[in-house]
Amino acid sequence: MSAITSEDSILDIINRHFPTEHPRLLLGRGDDCCVLATGEALAISTDLFMEDVHFRRRYFTPGDIGWKALAVNVSDLAAAGAHPAGFSLGLALPHGVSAELVDGLFAGMAELAGPLQLPLTGGDLSMADRLHLCVTVFGDTTPATRLRRRNACPGDLVFLGGRIGLARVGLNVLEAQGRAAMDAYPEACAAHLRPEPRLRDGLRLGALQEQQNGRISLMDVSDGLARDLPRLLGGLGADLQLPAPHPECLSWAGRQASNGQEAADIALKNCWLGGEDYAVVGTCEPRLAATVMTLIPDGTVLGRVTDDGILRWNGHVAGNEGFDHFASH
Amino acid sequence: MSAITSEDSILDIINRHFPTEHPRLLLGRGDDCCVLATGEALAISTDLFMEDVHFRRRYFTPGDIGWKALAVNVSDLAAAGAHPAGFSLGLALPHGVSAELVDGLFAGMAELAGPLQLPLTGGDLSMADRLHLCVTVFGDTTPATRLRRRNACPGDLVFLGGRIGLARVGLNVLEAQGRAAMDAYPEACAAHLRPEPRLRDGLRLGALQEQQNGRISLMDVSDGLARDLPRLLGGLGADLQLPAPHPECLSWAGRQASNGQEAADIALKNCWLGGEDYAVVGTCEPRLAATVMTLIPDGTVLGRVTDDGILRWNGHVAGNEGFDHFASH
Repeated sequence: MSAITSEDSILDIINRHFPTEHPRLLLGRGDDCCVLATGEALAISTDLFMEDVHFRRRYFTPGDIGWKALAVNVSDLAAAGAHPAGFSLGLALPHGVSAELVDGLFAGMAELAGPLQLPLTGGDLSMADRLHLCVTVFGDTTPATRLRRRNACPGDLVFLGGRIGLARVGLNVLEAQGRAAMDAYPEACAAHLRPEPRLRDGLRLGALQEQQNGRISLMDVSDGLARDLPRLLGGLGADLQLPAPHPECLSWAGRQASNGQEAADIALKNCWLGGEDYAVVGTCEPRLAATVMTLIPDGTVLGRVTDDGILRWNGHVAGNEGFDHFASH
Repeated sequence: MSAITSEDSILDIINRHFPTEHPRLLLGRGDDCCVLATGEALAISTDLFMEDVHFRRRYFTPGDIGWKALAVNVSDLAAAGAHPAGFSLGLALPHGVSAELVDGLFAGMAELAGPLQLPLTGGDLSMADRLHLCVTVFGDTTPATRLRRRNACPGDLVFLGGRIGLARVGLNVLEAQGRAAMDAYPEACAAHLRPEPRLRDGLRLGALQEQQNGRISLMDVSDGLARDLPRLLGGLGADLQLPAPHPECLSWAGRQASNGQEAADIALKNCWLGGEDYAVVGTCEPRLAATVMTLIPDGTVLGRVTDDGILRWNGHVAGNEGFDHFASH
């Protein structure tokens, strides 16, 4: 393990994984600003990814950290129906961090960025007590394809793309057992460590909205359905049936429960609360429902938007649940 | 002092200082992404601003922290000749932080952003052991007005806009005496606490470059001339005379020295090493020299670019000086 001894040695690692030249960069890294070629509008999202808040080095490999820091941002572009165009990075490293960690981190980022041809536009480096990343991601967008929240009407279909509750189980078992948990809960751990942003869903739904001049709303599920659905619906209600929990969620719930019914309830509530799912949840007007469900082959119909402002899931009435960093738990 | 108890209470404070609606925002904060209206290209820069690395709460007011976190980023736009268009913020707050601190922080940011009509495009909130900010700033730019580094030729004039060494003295006296240092060193402390980005210089020089199809280079001096000039000149040398140190720099140097000559030498070396000056340093071809100096009324001619790759200042040959977060000091 070799220690980092200069900023230049970090920049060498970065340059190896992310070339400074890129068709979209009119001016690459190494100047005061980078210059990104843009269309009429840019979708922008910023997410922090912080050690011991969002991840632990005990069970995240450096590559997992790099992947997920970028993935949670790209997930916001997916939810907006935007095309990824680039990202910038603020990276604070603990003292004595190894070159291997830095290399692994950028390798993980490049694994996600490479197929998307996403340039690293620039950023800043500093020291901190813990490893902190702040990613700002840029995406191309147009008024016609742009997907937003609070664009539903009563009667619209509510749909889901991706898994809910699986990453929450991954977090639980990784916290309890470290990476040994990957043997019994491989998909749950992968859902927590390496979420796959649902870019294809967003781009397809954006195109459908444009072609059909249709009413669609979309957001990514980062804080769990319980907390995110009210943000999507903006005061409207919904009557929902959650999909059957993933087998690993059922298996995990079985270990918390004294009988089968209790396990099923725990598994379902786990799906509702979720957190870090990086699924997408959306609504569409009824005439688009069939097309939407063919565009998201692994998607699920959750139910319908209602006008009574009440969220019902599997017969339960939703309360004030979900995660808030700043509340006392 | 009221404690922060929910993310929503922070968002309320932010919304008070930064309205979500802004002419440049096609979609404001509160969705997965914001959408910024753009021209053909966007200049982008990211800077971290971290407690006990870049600032101390012992002598930075919350307003100073907010101001400087944004100012150091806007300074990068200034150096690129770009027009500020917006910024995003990753903000990590320590547990138990007060609403007054958060309010002061955004008030300080708004003091700088307001006159520039700069919208806060979005961001993310989290907890951390210390107060950490990561700002990404966006600016409008065109190929003709864009100013960059490494665009000098031997014989070009080297010029400076703003003060060097003053912020370094401010850091020293604030570290030693806290805000009591503001009595004896008001301008040095202000230079450290509330640097003024040299936006007007950058915009004027960018316009001159376009009008005259001229050769100009520019960068902001954030790590001190000793470290930043080689980045500007990209392998070329320069023969320079630094401007007379500010009276507060001389006064500070006098306290470190046993006689007047030693004090003058300390003061001059302090200007050369600098750090966090947020001045701009640039080069221009000789035919533009007179115009450049009228466009920067408080500017200074430092000297000429040479072809021998050696940096000389006041007869000294520059070594490998300046600040590196990752080197052992």
